[in-house]
Amino acid sequence: MTDLQPPELKPFHAMEIMRRAKALETEGRAICHLEIGEPGAPPAPKVREAVARALPDPQGYTNATGTRELREALAGYYNEQHGIEVDPELIVATMGSSAGFILAFHAAFQPGARIAITRPGYPAYFNTLIGLGFEVVEIPLSPANGWKLTGDAAARAHAATPFEGLLFASPANPTGAAVDRAGLAELVATCAGLGVRLLSDEIYHGLDYQAPSVSALELTREAVVINSFSKYYCMTGWRIGWMVMPGDLIRRTEILQQNLFISAPTLSQIAATVALGERDYAEEQKAGYARNRLLLADGLRGLGFDIGPPTEGAFYAYAGLGRFSNDAMEFCQLMLDEAGVAATPGIDFDRTSGNRFVRFSYAGTEAAIVRALERMASWLK
Amino acid sequence: MTDLQPPELKPFHAMEIMRRAKALETEGRAICHLEIGEPGAPPAPKVREAVARALPDPQGYTNATGTRELREALAGYYNEQHGIEVDPELIVATMGSSAGFILAFHAAFQPGARIAITRPGYPAYFNTLIGLGFEVVEIPLSPANGWKLTGDAAARAHAATPFEGLLFASPANPTGAAVDRAGLAELVATCAGLGVRLLSDEIYHGLDYQAPSVSALELTREAVVINSFSKYYCMTGWRIGWMVMPGDLIRRTEILQQNLFISAPTLSQIAATVALGERDYAEEQKAGYARNRLLLADGLRGLGFDIGPPTEGAFYAYAGLGRFSNDAMEFCQLMLDEAGVAATPGIDFDRTSGNRFVRFSYAGTEAAIVRALERMASWLK
Repeated sequence: MTDLQPPELKPFHAMEIMRRAKALETEGRAICHLEIGEPGAPPAPKVREAVARALPDPQGYTNATGTRELREALAGYYNEQHGIEVDPELIVATMGSSAGFILAFHAAFQPGARIAITRPGYPAYFNTLIGLGFEVVEIPLSPANGWKLTGDAAARAHAATPFEGLLFASPANPTGAAVDRAGLAELVATCAGLGVRLLSDEIYHGLDYQAPSVSALELTREAVVINSFSKYYCMTGWRIGWMVMPGDLIRRTEILQQNLFISAPTLSQIAATVALGERDYAEEQKAGYARNRLLLADGLRGLGFDIGPPTEGAFYAYAGLGRFSNDAMEFCQLMLDEAGVAATPGIDFDRTSGNRFVRFSYAGTEAAIVRALERMASWLK
Repeated sequence: MTDLQPPELKPFHAMEIMRRAKALETEGRAICHLEIGEPGAPPAPKVREAVARALPDPQGYTNATGTRELREALAGYYNEQHGIEVDPELIVATMGSSAGFILAFHAAFQPGARIAITRPGYPAYFNTLIGLGFEVVEIPLSPANGWKLTGDAAARAHAATPFEGLLFASPANPTGAAVDRAGLAELVATCAGLGVRLLSDEIYHGLDYQAPSVSALELTREAVVINSFSKYYCMTGWRIGWMVMPGDLIRRTEILQQNLFISAPTLSQIAATVALGERDYAEEQKAGYARNRLLLADGLRGLGFDIGPPTEGAFYAYAGLGRFSNDAMEFCQLMLDEAGVAATPGIDFDRTSGNRFVRFSYAGTEAAIVRALERMASWLK
């Protein structure tokens, strides 16, 4: 019981910034929240009505893999949105994608296995993997090709340091980069060739501004697919996601879920089942993000940030700090304390080059973006 | 990607029985549910009212450790129920005790560390530990001393196979056994002497029929304390629990929570905060369990099961199968299929001797217990 902290385990700085922002708010400060990737709207009215109706009943555990209603509704979602058949028996409702990752890692790999992720990427990938005792290989991405992961880059990384799994997201956090069907097919083929298990994080599916996202399930049934109701369906705090597992991993996944988590929150499963039918509401929210996306990109560019073309998906702008700072954490802390604008330092997503970047979320209201840009304009002078 | 399943990872049979029972119900069968440890009542009316009021708001992520309101209410709970001061900054709201165990193991130990648990005990202890890559030492308990874990037994087990942590519950699942203050003090002292981290699972606190449960926090601040709203507050499917961490582990726990889970379900945190003030409602439910406890013990004894005195806490009877069977799983499957009574085979709790035991939960209604006993009486003939 000496020094138990592996050197690499780092805080999720977005959460640290949020904690500091909430503390400032209790002192009466008004903060513009651009730090956390969460919609400002509640779930659709019919979702909330269904939950209100269910409240008088005892909400006990469900089957470990989730209610039949939810898993069948998800199979319907794949049929309608992606034109594919998915067996509800291969679907597992999870406590957010967070629990999905834990289940996926332990279902598909032995502790200590080496998993590849992109840099930049979602910080919990790195921290969850090393927190659970896995090894991480980082595949660097470049703004020169729009932060996209290619099969070629994955193969080169594998040649240098072999890995057993590749976890990646499209659209991606923090860059919003999305791969198209050909790009995804290349990654699927590369993984198949290398004997690497592909884990496809599809949490930002639906939040695409140029073309519908392609699911890995359209191309292979060997991949682990992880998704969530948090983003597109405005349900972050509900902690409800799902996985589609390959046939050879489903039984082990179910056993792990029984023991590690029992089952996902029951009211959230009820809500999620209804949410799948309320895509019109989700599209209305997305129309707001689409406006914010252009507004924020233009605004940040005008202020002098290094920023590429508007992102293809998700709801983030990953902006280079350029002449403003070489210390993203300090920049974000000062901007929060002095300008009341909360954003996330790039070191969350990239431990190597992240100090030159800040991630802004545009999932909130247009008014919040406008106010944040105004405050930053005054503050940066 | 060959055979990834460690030989020891086993299903949580209670969940398997529940799945089978639910499948029979969809065929129109009426099943008596004595397999899962969950109350048949919803949470208190004021809890549900608070959730209904919160539904129109977006329920985003909370601070990783939980809302201030919930953590302060929990500090109040320790003050009122246990007469002790607990710093809200040491409290972490978790996605059920399930997520609490995962956080506790990874906060207090390195993957591969050896943790001791009791046999019989909660099956997820064993399966979660080995599923996450830890090693398990089992300390056998005996009905001769009421299934109680003693400091002596822990010390003897440690002398044979040293371990870094000791996880135990009082009241215990599946036996209902509870240690008194002297017994707990002995365990605390034994762990301190051996340099072993104590993890005290206090999920059945409040459900005690002879004397109030003693929290490890009354005796030490070096222990990890894990608790949940599932049982006493009738909130199993809400997936909300909490931990009280020692000061030296809280920061690592917070970082792990940020990355592994982000935060516990927000509506459930709102519900839990209100639930702590609704102990009168919880005590009404407990009065029902107290009646069931005697009814079930008498009934099972009358049917010929080997059963000791009524349990001290929780809501389980751990009954020896005696002359009925040497194969608890087969017994439970037949009893479910033929008599429509669901119960959990002892092999969930004890891989060595569990085939001679069945666990019955008495958390449901009195009517369900009566009906189950009638059905078993006919069936066992």
